[in-house]
Amino acid sequence: MAKLHTPLCDRLGIRLPIIQAPMPSASTPALVAAVSNAGALGSFGFNPIQPEAMLREAEAVRAQTRLPFNLNLFVSKQPAEIAVAAQRGALDAVAGYYKDFGLPPPQPVRAPYAPDLEAQLRAIEEIRPAVFTFHLGDLLQERVRRIQALGVKVGGSANCIAEARHLEALGVDFIIAQGAEAGGHRGSYLRDPYESMTGTLALVRMIVRNVKIPVAAAGGIMDGAGIAAVLALGAQAAWLGTAFVPCPESGASRQHKQSVLNSKEDATVVTEKFTGKPARVISNRFIREMEERGAPRLAFPAQNAVTRPLRAAAAKAGDPDFVALYAGQAAPLSRALPAAELVAALEAETLEALDRLAALRSQ
Amino acid sequence: MAKLHTPLCDRLGIRLPIIQAPMPSASTPALVAAVSNAGALGSFGFNPIQPEAMLREAEAVRAQTRLPFNLNLFVSKQPAEIAVAAQRGALDAVAGYYKDFGLPPPQPVRAPYAPDLEAQLRAIEEIRPAVFTFHLGDLLQERVRRIQALGVKVGGSANCIAEARHLEALGVDFIIAQGAEAGGHRGSYLRDPYESMTGTLALVRMIVRNVKIPVAAAGGIMDGAGIAAVLALGAQAAWLGTAFVPCPESGASRQHKQSVLNSKEDATVVTEKFTGKPARVISNRFIREMEERGAPRLAFPAQNAVTRPLRAAAAKAGDPDFVALYAGQAAPLSRALPAAELVAALEAETLEALDRLAALRSQ
Repeated sequence: MAKLHTPLCDRLGIRLPIIQAPMPSASTPALVAAVSNAGALGSFGFNPIQPEAMLREAEAVRAQTRLPFNLNLFVSKQPAEIAVAAQRGALDAVAGYYKDFGLPPPQPVRAPYAPDLEAQLRAIEEIRPAVFTFHLGDLLQERVRRIQALGVKVGGSANCIAEARHLEALGVDFIIAQGAEAGGHRGSYLRDPYESMTGTLALVRMIVRNVKIPVAAAGGIMDGAGIAAVLALGAQAAWLGTAFVPCPESGASRQHKQSVLNSKEDATVVTEKFTGKPARVISNRFIREMEERGAPRLAFPAQNAVTRPLRAAAAKAGDPDFVALYAGQAAPLSRALPAAELVAALEAETLEALDRLAALRSQ
Repeated sequence: MAKLHTPLCDRLGIRLPIIQAPMPSASTPALVAAVSNAGALGSFGFNPIQPEAMLREAEAVRAQTRLPFNLNLFVSKQPAEIAVAAQRGALDAVAGYYKDFGLPPPQPVRAPYAPDLEAQLRAIEEIRPAVFTFHLGDLLQERVRRIQALGVKVGGSANCIAEARHLEALGVDFIIAQGAEAGGHRGSYLRDPYESMTGTLALVRMIVRNVKIPVAAAGGIMDGAGIAAVLALGAQAAWLGTAFVPCPESGASRQHKQSVLNSKEDATVVTEKFTGKPARVISNRFIREMEERGAPRLAFPAQNAVTRPLRAAAAKAGDPDFVALYAGQAAPLSRALPAAELVAALEAETLEALDRLAALRSQ
């Protein structure tokens, strides 16, 4: 078979320059293993996952593949305990929806609002995945080095040139350039996320031109033509999330999969109403009403705890209007294929796009 | 020399799949002629230009080149006469700035706020450029056909799939897919412009997959790698505006050129405060303060008349804080080269990017 290979492929130990993006709602051992077995890099989004569960999930993947996979964590700081009185507005803002779903009134949420990052990092060191990536912040340089010393390749995500340069100085092995098209949480940590909404084409090229380490490109990539495009920009891998949401192996809810598959036009917005941090999702009634009312929300990740019962009840009821439908702007290009078939299609399409370009050259 | 050619090149009669985007503030006969003579397609932004001046400018280009060039018009509807009382808020919002520049107080503006579109279209029919493109709306199908019957190729711009399909049904020869990265006015006319801010990579691929006619890609393209990327997405030409702003032949003000050349990170915003329609510019004091105050503005293009004396005075005083610094999100990749050298560099870089991709294929 024709090859398609970049230096980053060698560094990460993968056959194809394709990375399935970490998505807590979609990553399952079955998805991660299927993607890695197909020659791309499967990834877990472990941000909301406790260390013991991280170990179990990684073990489940290793039972299905000996190939590299990627574990991803959010490394933003957690807020201190939020006083009950200060939660009133955010709780009242969702109380009506709780009632509509037959849930008891929303209760104040208690810290810790997410798993302990230090314990999660120790779990990463115990698991020693081939690749570890982080989002929404940085780590101490000594921590990056300690993880690398275990044989783990480390990547960090950047939404602007300054963040990419900072990560390069920190000594990471590669950078994920997250363009504005990308679904899920904006990774910004040095600039205001709303002032760092640069489109993938512009951002990837600017970052490639400003750092010496390899860059993986994220945001709006759904097929082989998109992969060829980011390789043309100088990226050494494409990072695709939304494309894998509808896979049968994906853990995304049926509503999430259907909303992605049924989208006909970019229908996404960036909102903080689900988790407290800006994230791109397909717009739905919850977002529209919360945004229109300027409804208060708690800081990330406490807001995640506020909306969790609602999202769970909506998913159970099959109601997409109260589920966080994480998706990128090119969701209309999604398709429902098993992960291995999707990776094979992406490979074939990328090679086809490169052949098409070679033909332009010689005409 | 190695070739780089798409079917759209043949249709438009150009050697290279590169179009210099129409920009009223930057397009001059010298720029347009230099770009066309270098093998790309030079373009005039004739939106604010009276028919007689259009004829003169086109003649001036024809004195310098026999090669194709493109004339562009905005085809949005003009607002009816705005009552003086209804202008008060918008005039008061800029009065302090007028005073700071020693200008007499802003006066109510009178319709027509822009040249008559029908007269401009008749001028297009008289000039018979090789290419005519329109922005911010559509034309009657019979008008498109009448212009095409004169031997003019017609293109229309789209910010979403629906607009691209509508233009295809109208019978245009090609579509300009304007991604969110693009500098200048958002072309939206079927969807809310703020709900049509899809990044170039995602938008171009979605439009290419949804229409059968050729697509030119706009937004964030500054070098040959960017051109190769949009060709990989299936576009048949790249449409670059900001890249040409700093050219010595460009009519952009010194402040505009310097602001583009000096930008180090995406520092652009989409604002209606200069003209009344959303346009991407490098943020400056005028925009920041007008947005913060939620300052009222008149409808497009009447607001253009409100801010014109201020912009002119600021340009004269060398103050970039009150000039409309139209620019795309990849402005940090700009360079100051004569137009012919820039086109030659873009060609060489595109070929280099294609060679780099071919090497990935064979490794």
